[in-house]
Amino acid sequence: MIPYTSPCLALEDGLFGRLRKDTAEDWEAYVTHPFLRRLANGTLPQAGFRNYLLQDYLYLVHFSRAYALAGYKSQTLEDLRAASRTLTGLLEVEMPLHVKLCAEWGLSEQQMLAHDEDIRSLAYTRFVLDTGLAGDLLDLTVALAPCVIGYGEVALRLLDDPDTQLEGNPYREWIETYAGAEYQAVAAGAIRQLELLGQRLGADARYSMLLKTFRTAVNLEQGFWGIGETSSDAKAL
Amino acid sequence: MIPYTSPCLALEDGLFGRLRKDTAEDWEAYVTHPFLRRLANGTLPQAGFRNYLLQDYLYLVHFSRAYALAGYKSQTLEDLRAASRTLTGLLEVEMPLHVKLCAEWGLSEQQMLAHDEDIRSLAYTRFVLDTGLAGDLLDLTVALAPCVIGYGEVALRLLDDPDTQLEGNPYREWIETYAGAEYQAVAAGAIRQLELLGQRLGADARYSMLLKTFRTAVNLEQGFWGIGETSSDAKAL
Amino acid sequence: MIPYTSPCLALEDGLFGRLRKDTAEDWEAYVTHPFLRRLANGTLPQAGFRNYLLQDYLYLVHFSRAYALAGYKSQTLEDLRAASRTLTGLLEVEMPLHVKLCAEWGLSEQQMLAHDEDIRSLAYTRFVLDTGLAGDLLDLTVALAPCVIGYGEVALRLLDDPDTQLEGNPYREWIETYAGAEYQAVAAGAIRQLELLGQRLGADARYSMLLKTFRTAVNLEQGFWGIGETSSDAKAL
Amino acid sequence: MIPYTSPCLALEDGLFGRLRKDTAEDWEAYVTHPFLRRLANGTLPQAGFRNYLLQDYLYLVHFSRAYALAGYKSQTLEDLRAASRTLTGLLEVEMPLHVKLCAEWGLSEQQMLAHDEDIRSLAYTRFVLDTGLAGDLLDLTVALAPCVIGYGEVALRLLDDPDTQLEGNPYREWIETYAGAEYQAVAAGAIRQLELLGQRLGADARYSMLLKTFRTAVNLEQGFWGIGETSSDAKAL
Repeated sequence: MIPYTSPCLALEDGLFGRLRKDTAEDWEAYVTHPFLRRLANGTLPQAGFRNYLLQDYLYLVHFSRAYALAGYKSQTLEDLRAASRTLTGLLEVEMPLHVKLCAEWGLSEQQMLAHDEDIRSLAYTRFVLDTGLAGDLLDLTVALAPCVIGYGEVALRLLDDPDTQLEGNPYREWIETYAGAEYQAVAAGAIRQLELLGQRLGADARYSMLLKTFRTAVNLEQGFWGIGETSSDAKAL
Repeated sequence: MIPYTSPCLALEDGLFGRLRKDTAEDWEAYVTHPFLRRLANGTLPQAGFRNYLLQDYLYLVHFSRAYALAGYKSQTLEDLRAASRTLTGLLEVEMPLHVKLCAEWGLSEQQMLAHDEDIRSLAYTRFVLDTGLAGDLLDLTVALAPCVIGYGEVALRLLDDPDTQLEGNPYREWIETYAGAEYQAVAAGAIRQLELLGQRLGADARYSMLLKTFRTAVNLEQGFWGIGETSSDAKAL
Repeated sequence: MIPYTSPCLALEDGLFGRLRKDTAEDWEAYVTHPFLRRLANGTLPQAGFRNYLLQDYLYLVHFSRAYALAGYKSQTLEDLRAASRTLTGLLEVEMPLHVKLCAEWGLSEQQMLAHDEDIRSLAYTRFVLDTGLAGDLLDLTVALAPCVIGYGEVALRLLDDPDTQLEGNPYREWIETYAGAEYQAVAAGAIRQLELLGQRLGADARYSMLLKTFRTAVNLEQGFWGIGETSSDAKAL
Repeated sequence: MIPYTSPCLALEDGLFGRLRKDTAEDWEAYVTHPFLRRLANGTLPQAGFRNYLLQDYLYLVHFSRAYALAGYKSQTLEDLRAASRTLTGLLEVEMPLHVKLCAEWGLSEQQMLAHDEDIRSLAYTRFVLDTGLAGDLLDLTVALAPCVIGYGEVALRLLDDPDTQLEGNPYREWIETYAGAEYQAVAAGAIRQLELLGQRLGADARYSMLLKTFRTAVNLEQGFWGIGETSSDAKAL
């Protein structure tokens, strides 16, 4: 395993860097999943991508609920504002963009909302929500980190990868969205927020528990890619 | 007691109307509190108003957390979006306006956030939050209703009242804000949302419990006005 | 599909009966899963049963947390006491019995608690907990019902089934525990409690949402049996 | 102020000792409240004591919910079992004893449960519950500490006080219950549990926030004694 270091994203610093390093094998399996390689060279069957998009939309609904929960759990106005702005971004920008992208792939919002959640999507979102409710804002933020930050790393790695084929790739928009400046700023902000909360809420003393949460979330994220490797629209639950 | 009917706000309709009627005495005591009459004729000591403003700011912090909680508890995207928009409105519009008004009265945001909460403010917000967490979105919305809708009625009543003295009244801005079209639309929206949730979540069958929640919230709101009748900045808890 | 009616357990009455009927196909797939037939005729590989036992223990930890949550969410002392007694029963009776049974199968408690949760176990428990926290005590109780009541029906059906082979069956103790008077009383109590809460908290008006919760829980329970069909002790998440 | 040191209860050790010392004035006002002196020399009007008993019963209902919540929030089986046992103790031992004591003072359980909560009781319990839900098990435990441990110190101080008059004192049973070995063991256990959680969950790094929670809870407890100084059975909210 050759360690990946990004010139753009501070992936090795602070609490996030420590969690990423201490789950190196799981993390590697997540950010270099076969689904991603097929997506990057354009060989992924389109039905698989559609399946992924659909479940990712259902995921975003509960992911938004997790940021609303972060608002409730905030002990300072800054944390509350940060959570509220992320929530607004998700509901008013990301999700409408997602709906637009899905429409291009023949999926209407109505259709997606009526669809059952895949167990791999359901498991991750409910794990995040329960972890956040049982614990405090730091526990919640650690559970969210593999998603928010990981997508940033995934996209950078794909751009860096000589095997990646952007020209004529039907999935190019997906890669460029997450590698783009806007999303990279979100990922960088998530690294900083995790660091601040970690310092304020005693991450060092609680590290073994946080690591367990992080590892579970990484593995659930890894499993999520598998959704895109099955084209079935069959009932997943 | 002469019942108050507003031409603008549908105070007697549906679930809200039923709750208001079934707590008529408590509601009347809340919306016609002596504090309000002194505010409307300008005889309220300014130290009292300052005390009220300060505690109302601390109240808004936890009130915002309650809308974040409503986002988490939403079962539909519409409910989630509605909660998120109210939260944004509170954090990005109402609270900055409140800070501006308070600055005119010699209170900085820093000062307010460092101040202890009065037990009357703390009791109401924590009651709302616990009710919302223990129950569902309908329980939470019922607990919030006396505040959101009541302030709309209070302001309309003050405008209607011949004893009200707007000219030269230092509290005129407060009255006109809550009687204004923007806030009245918020109150009207809250009546509608309560109605929709009530139908969807079985308000009729749960009515006695909802009534108990509503009555407690009304009485806590009534007690809140008392904060403006004490000028003391002494530690409240 | 021949409908199953039990002389012992009121499986067709009230709210539970309605939910069971309206998910008939999913329910049938849950309570007649191939895992159960192999368990009943003794052909299930022992490694599979061991895998099931281990994950079921991890499941019980979070299942207990769900009853603690039911205590927090109770609006009456009776509901609070009922939740507390179930919690005590789980922690002080069922789980020690489970530990004893597992020891006979070569699994120590230490070993089990150190093991990763299978995604099928994690998904169900976290779904129950989030549903319960986002909703009220009725939502929580509906999410728990397929487990508590379903195990009662499963065991009765196995006893009724001519293909079931108790003599010399290594899994006989498991079947007889859930078919036994003690567990059947628990299942019957759960049917009654669901009915009471349904009446008190407006189940009719909220039925479509409750049905969705119930169906998801049934399907997650169905998936759980699959754990016993894989002998792998490999990391599940 | 002469610092109080108990030979029985380790009031000055660890996290609890630090919180108690850093809120010395507030703590002193809580544990030496005039209500307690009147109770100890028997001069407290009986109507006041009755009022206190009644509100204390309503308090215990929500206090029990807080221990159920602690069960939900537990990350280890030991914490979950500890919470469950405290919950059982409250519901099956303390509350029935309280009902018995109240009956001697002419208060039936029915009567008490039908009574409105005093704002001083409501404020404290809902503050504890919201603090516990927004934060983690350590935040919750810190919010509960002034009650559980403080009652132990209060009773020891009263027994030590030469002004205390046990002979013929109608409140003797109350003092001796909390000074008794059984309750003192509960208080000592709470000091130990707080210490363990503090170490495991990073109390040092989070100290300023925990101190704020503790101080608010101490002041709410101090306010609670005031309930016993008003004999009114009038509606409190």
